[in-house]
Amino acid sequence: MIYSEKGDQTVQVCYSPLLWPVFKQENAVVLVTDIFRATTSMCTAFQNKVKSIIPVAEVSESEYYKEQGFIVSGERDGKTLSCAEFGNSAFHFMQPRLQGKTVIMNTTNGTKALKSVEGSNNQVCVGAFTNLKAVCDWILQQGRNVIIFCAGWKNRFSMEDTLFAGAAAEYLIENGSGRYHTICDSAIAAIDLWREAKPDLRQYIEKAAHRHRLRKMGLDDVIDYSLQLNIHTCVPIYEKNEIKDIMA
Amino acid sequence: MIYSEKGDQTVQVCYSPLLWPVFKQENAVVLVTDIFRATTSMCTAFQNKVKSIIPVAEVSESEYYKEQGFIVSGERDGKTLSCAEFGNSAFHFMQPRLQGKTVIMNTTNGTKALKSVEGSNNQVCVGAFTNLKAVCDWILQQGRNVIIFCAGWKNRFSMEDTLFAGAAAEYLIENGSGRYHTICDSAIAAIDLWREAKPDLRQYIEKAAHRHRLRKMGLDDVIDYSLQLNIHTCVPIYEKNEIKDIMA
Repeated sequence: MIYSEKGDQTVQVCYSPLLWPVFKQENAVVLVTDIFRATTSMCTAFQNKVKSIIPVAEVSESEYYKEQGFIVSGERDGKTLSCAEFGNSAFHFMQPRLQGKTVIMNTTNGTKALKSVEGSNNQVCVGAFTNLKAVCDWILQQGRNVIIFCAGWKNRFSMEDTLFAGAAAEYLIENGSGRYHTICDSAIAAIDLWREAKPDLRQYIEKAAHRHRLRKMGLDDVIDYSLQLNIHTCVPIYEKNEIKDIMA
Repeated sequence: MIYSEKGDQTVQVCYSPLLWPVFKQENAVVLVTDIFRATTSMCTAFQNKVKSIIPVAEVSESEYYKEQGFIVSGERDGKTLSCAEFGNSAFHFMQPRLQGKTVIMNTTNGTKALKSVEGSNNQVCVGAFTNLKAVCDWILQQGRNVIIFCAGWKNRFSMEDTLFAGAAAEYLIENGSGRYHTICDSAIAAIDLWREAKPDLRQYIEKAAHRHRLRKMGLDDVIDYSLQLNIHTCVPIYEKNEIKDIMA
């Protein structure tokens, strides 16, 4: 019974930072996703026992932290920032030297999404296909309304983020013992797209625009990696401008 | 070959007036839709030989036109405005007395969408399932990029508008002799949702949130009517604050 009006908690999907104002709530869980690449890279970092990640939106902020001696990662439109030691590919976050350290991360879309939800009285967590089950199981324990917030691409609807949103919405509703429901058209559409895509996610994502952008930039090495389900058990929580793995 | 990067003209889909800023273009055709109910009612009006429709966004505008002796229709949240002779149901626009007349129309979402695109150097046309083929055949003659603009529901993504967008995008690409393509994720998602829905559109739309809203307001008599394909041959064009049927 996905399309029920019954249940205590609602699940909604926000497709773009520009749409956030119509979803804004108090006391909700906001699940932020940016599959290619910020949130998949964050999950990878925490699985590699990074201590925390500070997401920043401005290049000047990255430069500031660099001067303070922090490890700085970041890119704009797929290119590594000049002040950064490495870009945002998940593979960079597997380096053993990052264990126990705080990393400053500057991303085109993911940071913007995280910053959008800042300051509200919500719990903000970070999700990707790689930690889908872990983050959703944690959400199920919170007993709150859920908004899945897609970072998108430069404020546009993004297929891969939407497919993740559909997968998460389906998981919450199916595993929530009837407590979760949705009458949100965006959530319904995301679930239906996910159900069409999941038999062959890699093939389906070939159609997505961001896929073409990554390929043009020669960065599509992370795509297969990013589409793996449940290889990570971390639950990154964003609080007071810092992301930490609550399972660590 | 729906998902091609080839072709001279692009087809994009904008899901909400809030997203319009990222789609804004010059010299495009903008196809505005608000299936339940503004654009279906507009098509019905033109099929009934209404001379023109002036869409307005503010109640004060409706009152102004009322004082000038115009026929005024309009509703807010499904309720007829006190200054209006009738609401926005398509059935009201079948009255023979409206033939040859100008009607002032005030709607919750549709007018807002039309007003959003005002002032750009674009051609703006009005579409619904009822005039899908007519309006798309006209668009194919224009040789311009196309943006399908969903009015949505209070700035939210709306399933029925998205399904129409998918149907129109599919039609343009399949009937455009290879001239049209899309790499827009929103367009791809709309086409896939439409392909899932079209074998039984009425059943699929049962899931949509706006469907529930209309039913609660006792207005769902127009739903079956609004989901009929190609019963109208009009092509309403919005220019200088007035909508006229270019086929009349």
